This record gives sequence, structure tokens and C-alpha cells, in this order.
Amino acid sequence: MSGATSDIHSKPTLALAMGDPAGISPELTAKLLVLPEVLEAARLIVIGDARVLAMGAKHAGVSPDVAVTRDIGALPATDRPIFVDLAHLDPATIKLGVVSAEGGRFALANFRAALELAARGGAAAVTFTPFNKGAMRLAHPAYADEISFCEEVLGEGGHGSEFNVLDGLWNARVTSHVALADVARLITREAVLDGLKLTDSAMRAAGFARPRIAVAGLNPHAGDSGNFGREEIEVIGPAVEDAQRLGIAADGPFPSDTVFLRAKAGAFDAVLTMYHDQGQIAMKLMGFDRGVTLLGGTPFPILTPAHGTAYDIAGRGVANIGAARAAMLLAARMAAGRSAAPAGRAVEAAAG
Amino acid sequence: MSGATSDIHSKPTLALAMGDPAGISPELTAKLLVLPEVLEAARLIVIGDARVLAMGAKHAGVSPDVAVTRDIGALPATDRPIFVDLAHLDPATIKLGVVSAEGGRFALANFRAALELAARGGAAAVTFTPFNKGAMRLAHPAYADEISFCEEVLGEGGHGSEFNVLDGLWNARVTSHVALADVARLITREAVLDGLKLTDSAMRAAGFARPRIAVAGLNPHAGDSGNFGREEIEVIGPAVEDAQRLGIAADGPFPSDTVFLRAKAGAFDAVLTMYHDQGQIAMKLMGFDRGVTLLGGTPFPILTPAHGTAYDIAGRGVANIGAARAAMLLAARMAAGRSAAPAGRAVEAAAG
Repeated sequence: MSGATSDIHSKPTLALAMGDPAGISPELTAKLLVLPEVLEAARLIVIGDARVLAMGAKHAGVSPDVAVTRDIGALPATDRPIFVDLAHLDPATIKLGVVSAEGGRFALANFRAALELAARGGAAAVTFTPFNKGAMRLAHPAYADEISFCEEVLGEGGHGSEFNVLDGLWNARVTSHVALADVARLITREAVLDGLKLTDSAMRAAGFARPRIAVAGLNPHAGDSGNFGREEIEVIGPAVEDAQRLGIAADGPFPSDTVFLRAKAGAFDAVLTMYHDQGQIAMKLMGFDRGVTLLGGTPFPILTPAHGTAYDIAGRGVANIGAARAAMLLAARMAAGRSAAPAGRAVEAAAG
Repeated sequence: MSGATSDIHSKPTLALAMGDPAGISPELTAKLLVLPEVLEAARLIVIGDARVLAMGAKHAGVSPDVAVTRDIGALPATDRPIFVDLAHLDPATIKLGVVSAEGGRFALANFRAALELAARGGAAAVTFTPFNKGAMRLAHPAYADEISFCEEVLGEGGHGSEFNVLDGLWNARVTSHVALADVARLITREAVLDGLKLTDSAMRAAGFARPRIAVAGLNPHAGDSGNFGREEIEVIGPAVEDAQRLGIAADGPFPSDTVFLRAKAGAFDAVLTMYHDQGQIAMKLMGFDRGVTLLGGTPFPILTPAHGTAYDIAGRGVANIGAARAAMLLAARMAAGRSAAPAGRAVEAAAG
């Protein structure tokens, strides 16, 4: 693992795990491998099966130029993208547009290999083309989401957080894949402050000097001065003040039904929401399918396009590359920032 | 109260209560009174203070032609809009852009008079220009929201529901101004079914033959097959089936972060959401300030523009009339439907 992540003069190295083979992931991977701006921004180490990549290239009508290896432990010295062929899936066994345990196993194996490569210092960030959660669960019944799988593979926990990025606007959330009935009790001063710290550090890593973070309230009208819930007064407001004392440009809490309008108009760089749909309703209406999902709080950034596997258009070569492209370019920017420091320090900084 | 609401050959009669005097309500009222399409669609009985209307007319640069009376119990027979002058507020005592108890008392008195007029059969629907909730509470500390005030004045309860209407898309919610911590326990099969019935009947009253109503889930990913909450499986889904058995075109539950995208694209006429911000985040991002708020489940429809008092632009004559105009035209359409039946039957039909 020579200085892939520590040489400030070379491009940052990104691991790219191929996602679900029954959707648009194969063709997206192939298309990414021929995008000049992506190849310019980063060295790519793509992990998958060469036969699945060939299928994707055929569907996309492109001819990626990659250096293929079967040994992820001894990567070739080359300027070309490297393709690590795990030789674990014959695409003939996959039906496009159909969830399968085989597809889930394929994506999980690629993702695991990419995470382990980055954990060893062989890549400064991990990216992946879309997964199908149903397939992941068929392959790995304990699979809940990407964050918990990362924690399982990397042996860390408790800091995972997901960011959504659309046209420069970031969204993070204090709680995510939990029942709405459980949200209020999970909104603690510590949890909100942790969310603000993670958002601030991730955005600084992406190049924001001092990101302006709006904090959403939990209740309608942000509690309406305590009339519909007191979390804004007793929990969220104090956490915002805690963050301000740490030098974080946090503001709020604001009513969640107008905060995105203000952020969209340029008043903020990010919105920290209290629960999943509070942010997702807004981001998806604003066109988040064009956006990027970033897992933060991990030892290195992990990024993927926000959209799903798009089974309905798999194999037709019509999948839009925009979000996957945006994910790669943001990954490269974040990885370049990390590459400037020795790997150990960069890991500490990213993990906050 | 000769047949204002029962003569199918005359225009429907709408009561219009002037809202908060320190915001844009006075100028909106004056502007509405000179809009040909509004005067064409309905007979108007405006309730307020003639001096406040004169101030609004001056700000708006218009000259409304109204028949002024001080006696709401003996309205003149005229084709012109009637202005009921309660002579209860000298605008010289009001500072534009400032919340005050006087302003709240003014709006409350107008609203109460309009509700009582309609309850007596003197108007088929009630409309109002924007209120300031803070001012209402200064004037009437028990004031929670429009729905509970209507119930207080009209002596009915339990059926109040708010609809938001934007460009033909309706949104109703099962819970509204309650703390998020209380939402999940308020989502019962009965409450969801009641919401579907109210939405269906209000939309039929507004001219939809068989409104297609999408029902949002409560939890992220609509519970993800029970992984993040079971309300979709145990409560919301069964309520949708109950509604379908009653002939209501209900469908769902759907993940709330994509259901508005589908509705906006034309797949549904309405979305029934489980809590306040689930709908408000979406509707406001889609431009709901241009929309209309409708209180349903009351004995007669009550409508208002969705935007607020806009204190920041009060008195400048620049307030956009679009939402207030839309509220009046929808009120006229709903009132016309009610006017075709004797008042008693219409009340029963509207109250579901």
C-alpha cells in the first residue's frame, strides 16, 4: 500500500464497489470509467466481477480501459483505473430487474472488499453504485443499512451519520431508520450536538471554511413557543448554543416546513433535521435523485448516488450518470483533503 | 336571512372576515373587493371596520364599492358587496408590522361574527384574510388555532380538519398541532379512516367525482415492511382497506418522501398525511404560499389564503392577491354546491 492516500502530489485514490447487478449499477460503473472528469480527479480501484462489468459496458455502449487484477492485496502500478475481479458472479445467473440473494451477495462482497481496502489505507474514500436493500437482506439477514454494515466491517460504532448533498446543499439527520414513535426520545442535547459536530467536520473536509448549518425543530412550528412540544426549548436550542460555543456556525431551531425554503434560497449551507422524512421529503422534492449520499463519521468518506437501482430501466443504457458522477467528484474532493495529511491524522479528523 | 344559501339561481353568499390589521389583510380585503371574477362568483359580506378597510384600500390603491351597514342582523338587499362595519378599531391605534392584542381582538371579533352569520344560514361559507396567531393569543389566551376556535363558537367538536390546496392538489392530515412525541399514539385505524372520509367528502363538495387519495405512511420508508415501525401494517393499511370498502378511492400507505412527487406528477388528487410537517414541508416547497387553507368537518366550509400576515410588506400595496383570490373562488365553488340543497341537508353532507 504505497502512499496512495499520503502523497499530496498524486491524485486521491477512490475505491468503487459495484452495486446490485440486476439494476443500473453495472452500466453506471462502466460509464463512470470513461468519464474524463472523473478519471482526471481520482485514481479508481473498481471492485466487482469482470463479466458483470462487461455486461454493463455493453448496455452502456462504452469500452472502459482498465487494468484487471484478481489480487486486491497486490495492485498493479498503473495510471489506468484498476479493476479488481473477484470472479464471484456470472451475469448469466442474474435476471435484470429481479431481487436476488446472489445479487445481494455480489454487492456485499464488493462493498466489504472496498471498505477493507480503505481501512488498510489503500483508498482514501469508498464509493459504490446503487444497492438493493432487499437483495442485501436476502444475502445477509442482519443487514439493516449501509452505516451499520460499515460498523460491522470496520469494527467501529456509534458515530455513523448520513449526509445528503444536492446542488451544494447538505442535509444530515439526528435520527434515521427508526420508527417515528421512537424519534422524540432519541432527540437529546448530546445527539443534536453530535449531529452538528459531524456535519461541521464533514463539510469542512469537503471544502467549506465555516459551513452555515440550520437546525430544524422537532415539532410543528418548531413547537410554537412550547405549545406543541418543548424539545426546541429544552433540548435543541441548548444544543445549538453548545455548538456555537465550539465555533460551529449553527442556527435555529427553525420550523421544518420553511427551513428548506430558506436554505434553498442561500441562507444556509446545510440543514440538520431531527428525523428521516423531515429531510427526505424536502430533498426528494428538490430533486435529490440528482444528489449524493455521503456516510460520515466513518474513518473515511463513503459516497453513493442518492437514487436507487432503477430496476425498471436496467440494461437499457439510459440511466442518467449525473448523480454517480457527482458522488465521484465529491469523493475525490474529500479524499484530496484527507490525502494532504498522514493517513492516521486524516482518519482522526474525519471521525471527529 | 332570506334564501342566501338555498336559492340555486342566485350566486352563493360568502362571509369574509378581515384578518390581522397590522399585516397585509386590510389591503388584501380591499383588493378582493375589486376583483371582477370574485364579484362574479359570489355575493360578499365583509366584516371589519370601515376605517381599516379605507386604510387597506389606500395602501392597495383601489376603491371598493360596498354597501356599508352597522347591523349584521338586517343586511341590505343589494347586488353590491356588503360591508358590515363593527366600528371596533381605529387604525391610528395600530402600528403596521407589530403584533398587538388590539389587532387580535379585531380579527377574532370579525371571525366570530362571520361564523355566527354562516351558522344562522346567512352565508354558505366563511373566508378570512390572514390572522396573526400571536395577536389572537394576546387577545384570547385560550386561542389554539382556527379549528378549535370554530368549535368554541359553533359548539361542535371532534370533526375539525384542515386541508391545504395547491394547484388542484389537496393535502389533509390525521394529526396537526400536536407534539411529534404524541403523533404515533394518535394514529389509530379510526383516525385514519375519519381523515379519509373527511377528505373524500370535502373534495366531492368541491367538485371531484371520486377523488384519488394517497395515504402517507408514518415511518421512514413506510416502515420498510415492519423494520422501522408497524403502524403501516397494523393501523394505516387496514384503515385504507376500510375506506376502499366504503367506495373511497384511497391507496397506500406510501413512503412519505416520495408520495408528493407522485401526486405532483398527477397520480393522485390528494395526499392524507399522518402529521403536520409531513405535509407542510412538501406543500410549502411546492409553493403552498400560493395555495389555500380549507377547514373542513365544520358545518360550512371555512377558507383562507395559506400565507401569513406578511408584516414585512404591510402597507406597501405589493401583497400578491393570488392565494386570497384562489381561496374566494374555491369557497364560491364549494358554497355553490351547498346552495343547491336545503341548508340543513347541506350541513349534514359537509359534516360527513
